[in-house]
Amino acid sequence: MSSSPAVVLLSGGLDSATVLAIARSQGFQCYALSFDYGQRHRVELQMADRLADALGAIKHSVAHVDLRMFGGSALTAEIDVPKDRPDSEMAHGIPITYVPARNTVFLSFALAWAEVLGARDIFIGVNALDYSGYPDCRPEFIAAYEQMANLATKSAVEGATLKIHAPLIDLTKAQIIRAGLDLGVDYGLTSSCYDPGPNAEPCGHCDSCLIRAKGFQEVGVPDPALARSSH
Amino acid sequence: MSSSPAVVLLSGGLDSATVLAIARSQGFQCYALSFDYGQRHRVELQMADRLADALGAIKHSVAHVDLRMFGGSALTAEIDVPKDRPDSEMAHGIPITYVPARNTVFLSFALAWAEVLGARDIFIGVNALDYSGYPDCRPEFIAAYEQMANLATKSAVEGATLKIHAPLIDLTKAQIIRAGLDLGVDYGLTSSCYDPGPNAEPCGHCDSCLIRAKGFQEVGVPDPALARSSH
Repeated sequence: MSSSPAVVLLSGGLDSATVLAIARSQGFQCYALSFDYGQRHRVELQMADRLADALGAIKHSVAHVDLRMFGGSALTAEIDVPKDRPDSEMAHGIPITYVPARNTVFLSFALAWAEVLGARDIFIGVNALDYSGYPDCRPEFIAAYEQMANLATKSAVEGATLKIHAPLIDLTKAQIIRAGLDLGVDYGLTSSCYDPGPNAEPCGHCDSCLIRAKGFQEVGVPDPALARSSH
Repeated sequence: MSSSPAVVLLSGGLDSATVLAIARSQGFQCYALSFDYGQRHRVELQMADRLADALGAIKHSVAHVDLRMFGGSALTAEIDVPKDRPDSEMAHGIPITYVPARNTVFLSFALAWAEVLGARDIFIGVNALDYSGYPDCRPEFIAAYEQMANLATKSAVEGATLKIHAPLIDLTKAQIIRAGLDLGVDYGLTSSCYDPGPNAEPCGHCDSCLIRAKGFQEVGVPDPALARSSH
């Protein structure tokens, strides 16, 4: 058990909520970091705030980062989010919802905060299975980022070793949900949808909703977030 | 000679102006990127805009990045900028003007823009001699960043190789100034001071002013930026 500070990237989705619970279960004092990056689904940020509180984070900060200035993704630009794609289609290529260099940018802010806090641990909820099309969700990216981070900062120069934890990287969605339920995560407080309604109602048809539904189905429990849905 | 697009980090200072001129001289179509990061010396941003224009950049963008939210540096927080430090003192330790993870954050934005532009080249004006105390100005940091970037993006996955150019990394300030003068850089348009006046008058006493003055002295030409100074 550690009582050291850690920075935890928290989107308000299922994965990062589980990561925050894991970091807490390891005894870290968690500083949760979310981003207002011009995403369509800004309701995520309100969810993230409630989640950070519910999961015992010491502090929750929202960094404003304008990734829309560069364009290039259905999550930030005026491109339609694809709906009802079959698994076979999701598995191919890099999805239109990929945001250029997003995890690189997010981890860089986490690194800045970690350095100011004196934290040697950063947690991120990337997953290589469901997001195989995203280059910055792969284990080799995380390893390379960690190596770079250990050369980038004052604390690294002074001998501290920084670790990027990606505890979900090899898990299926069902395994992630089971881990979170064991740690008491209330998934009713999370939002995974790429195109939610004003009250965070999941659309039920985007890739993210389909992956989440399959995960809960495999676990054999109902998704509490569906209570927000209008159907 | 290349006519490919490149992203050039441009602070408005002497180093990055020289880098932009170097990138242009190699035939790159330059997209200049500056940051409004809550720095004390915001006059840099106006200088950067004039410089980008004078040096033939295709476009100049300013990204708003709130690094003040984490605190931790004399350049962003309410900490006094040190004045009239002797060389011997500048050479020791990490200066109070170091901004946590700044180059990591800046390069990450450059990476996002490069990906959207289809650019495979990013230029940054880091220098390991004058800024030996900054961990993120060292060659090993740049090499590790490049390695990470080549795993981070869609274009990397699709086989493109991204290069981080740091053409000033081993040069003395005098060598940088000579290179820029050879390429026709008007250093009167640059501002290096950590604590400038409202019209970008250099204070003449901060580390950056002292290093710059020494450089021009070695080259044996007057610094045209001193025309802005009140003395």
